[in-house]
Amino acid sequence: MIDRRSMLAGAAALAASPAFAANKAKPFNPAFPGGFLWGAATAGHQVEGNNTNSDCWLLENIKPTVFSEPSRDAANSLELWALDLDCAKAMGLNSYRFSLEWPRIEPEEGLFSLAMVNHYKAIIDGCRARGLTPIVTFNHYTTPIWFAKRGGWTNPAAPDCFARFCAFAAKHLAAGIGYATTLNEPNIMNILKVVLPPQVFGLQHEMLVAAAKASGVAKFAAGNAIEEEDIPLSTRHLIAGHKAARAAIKAVRPDLPVGVSLSMFDDQAVGKNSIRDEMRGKLYGPWLEAVKGDDFLGVQNYERVIWGDKGRVEAPKGGPVNYMGAEIFAPSLAGSVRFAHQATGCPIIVTEHGAGTTDDTVRAALIPAALHDLKVAMDDGVPVKGYVHWSLVDNFEWISGYKVKFGLHSFDPATFERKAKPSAGVLGAIARNNAL
Amino acid sequence: MIDRRSMLAGAAALAASPAFAANKAKPFNPAFPGGFLWGAATAGHQVEGNNTNSDCWLLENIKPTVFSEPSRDAANSLELWALDLDCAKAMGLNSYRFSLEWPRIEPEEGLFSLAMVNHYKAIIDGCRARGLTPIVTFNHYTTPIWFAKRGGWTNPAAPDCFARFCAFAAKHLAAGIGYATTLNEPNIMNILKVVLPPQVFGLQHEMLVAAAKASGVAKFAAGNAIEEEDIPLSTRHLIAGHKAARAAIKAVRPDLPVGVSLSMFDDQAVGKNSIRDEMRGKLYGPWLEAVKGDDFLGVQNYERVIWGDKGRVEAPKGGPVNYMGAEIFAPSLAGSVRFAHQATGCPIIVTEHGAGTTDDTVRAALIPAALHDLKVAMDDGVPVKGYVHWSLVDNFEWISGYKVKFGLHSFDPATFERKAKPSAGVLGAIARNNAL
Repeated sequence: MIDRRSMLAGAAALAASPAFAANKAKPFNPAFPGGFLWGAATAGHQVEGNNTNSDCWLLENIKPTVFSEPSRDAANSLELWALDLDCAKAMGLNSYRFSLEWPRIEPEEGLFSLAMVNHYKAIIDGCRARGLTPIVTFNHYTTPIWFAKRGGWTNPAAPDCFARFCAFAAKHLAAGIGYATTLNEPNIMNILKVVLPPQVFGLQHEMLVAAAKASGVAKFAAGNAIEEEDIPLSTRHLIAGHKAARAAIKAVRPDLPVGVSLSMFDDQAVGKNSIRDEMRGKLYGPWLEAVKGDDFLGVQNYERVIWGDKGRVEAPKGGPVNYMGAEIFAPSLAGSVRFAHQATGCPIIVTEHGAGTTDDTVRAALIPAALHDLKVAMDDGVPVKGYVHWSLVDNFEWISGYKVKFGLHSFDPATFERKAKPSAGVLGAIARNNAL
Repeated sequence: MIDRRSMLAGAAALAASPAFAANKAKPFNPAFPGGFLWGAATAGHQVEGNNTNSDCWLLENIKPTVFSEPSRDAANSLELWALDLDCAKAMGLNSYRFSLEWPRIEPEEGLFSLAMVNHYKAIIDGCRARGLTPIVTFNHYTTPIWFAKRGGWTNPAAPDCFARFCAFAAKHLAAGIGYATTLNEPNIMNILKVVLPPQVFGLQHEMLVAAAKASGVAKFAAGNAIEEEDIPLSTRHLIAGHKAARAAIKAVRPDLPVGVSLSMFDDQAVGKNSIRDEMRGKLYGPWLEAVKGDDFLGVQNYERVIWGDKGRVEAPKGGPVNYMGAEIFAPSLAGSVRFAHQATGCPIIVTEHGAGTTDDTVRAALIPAALHDLKVAMDDGVPVKGYVHWSLVDNFEWISGYKVKFGLHSFDPATFERKAKPSAGVLGAIARNNAL
């Protein structure tokens, strides 16, 4: 059932979408430029399993917790990472995005692990051996427990701590990396305030209090779980951390492209006095300034948000929806990318895009539709260097656990065997042809 | 310099040694029986590295600590275990003793890891592929942090906890195991009271208090670090744990030989009213009863202790010494094995024997000398099924850290490359010939 109000809002939003408007401008060219990155992504904690020294593991296994289940073995990519590279290669991709686990590489403060940095070096070498350009996230949310026990990103020492880790990792790994991002969605807490039900923050508070008690400290703050009131301070430190990390990586290898990945909606304004621009300020504001001058900006888009004069307006119903019942709106990718470039001047890499759904036909349909509009944006002059789908393989989807499926591949929880879904064939064919 | 008192004591001890006495009985036969196990040993925490979820890691990295340095990457055997198997194979051994890391297989209470049990299954399969009989220690000291936070082996629930872990591990692993031991040196705390300077227990107390505070619990007790007054209670639980674990393993595979490894001196009595037998009661007493009926007893011997009427008598000086300056006395192995069999009726596997020394010529000389006397004991009727040297590779030697070298191989701390020492050739030649 589509009610009249939603339909009106939806039509207005569609007309207002830059992607939609651009679509009419010229005949469509399905070919992507040479050297375009076609990739799929994973993140350490979400696929490796047994990341017991991470802030997140502790929070998953404490009572109370906002996590629906613990991460346990994940996809066992700690041991089976070569299978993941084989999957990416077999699909026909030319790049692979993965992350370093800071809790493994610096398991105690200032104590760095050659063994674990060698582990990630083997993954980078494995990418190169398969013709996959490694896009490496230096930190994908999870921080070491010792860092969280010091108040995580609320601690003024956090930026320097992070930069020191990045300097160590870069020293050992930078030579083989294709593109580096410092942080993954450092604006996630701002985003979660919009997409999550408010009661989550109450339960999260109780979880963080329990974690502090279990750790014998006054304050425990995790990479993607902090008190609501800590968001502004944490954001300042994350921005300083990004800049310090970028400098640390560049000090090792000045020619390595370094950026940061932001979580970005396709924010659409409807009606008079839409709060859209105000909300963009809240969701991304300081980051849009901070990334100016970076080699690229990573855009991670999953949905659009329609902003009226009082807040979020419900999206039209009737189309495909994700696991939360939210609309899956293919043009949102191009919309977010257009804005990201316009607001920052940065070249763009889509470092994440996808859909959480157990219906793979939805994902298979979303990919070409979103890429169509992305290509239109590119032909309109937006410099986009690559498209990385989230995710290569079903994984531990944070507080939603394993029920939510983002993967182009599934895995068997007993044998950890990977299996390509039809959507992998869809993206793979586009990647091989370098064209829609 | 050998002072007169030491010489007298030494001579008396030598005459009292069963190994020495037996030596005179018949001509020496250098051939070992067919099927004799020739092995070298490692233990998870000491070689794997980054065992961050273990009681020991926490204690190594807390202040104050009795550990001279943290274990860090160890020999990186978590990733490079195949190199260890290759070393054992290349030496000419026919068995390999290693341990399962309970903190990895059960990282939270009741949460078992298929990924990690598969990891150890791969090692067992790797042994079989190389013709090495796997001798598997189900627990080599280190326990999960959650277990230590519950008071470790002082908790009455500990035996059932351990048996549950063993049942899970056995279900996945028992088919490929050659010999299983439940616990490694569960009498270690009794031994440490004799060999360590008493002030260590004071510092250990402070360390355990700090660990409890950092863990938000009242009592933290580790696998090989507990309060002195907890030793009797802990021993009762360890014995119950051994029995419950043996039953759990046998329930999966009744024909799998199961035993336990004890730390055993060659206790020698000198003079009138020697306290030797009383001390044996304190060091091994309840275990000698507990293991009766086991398929075998693992003996781990490193030294002799000479007991007079008031306590330990200094050993004669002038011979080779270990890293602590203590005598290296080759006949001690046979002495301890003779007593172990006599006291329990069990067949014996020497699951550890070696010397902590940076002078590998000492190790190379010790091996044939000790094996000579061991063979004499065997020819006297002591059923010995195998000899496993400690250690295959230099490792994290607990509170002594990395300075103490027990390995038949060294490893490079930057590349983790293994290199055979001459002593590996000595033991390897004996193993290949199955004869001295």
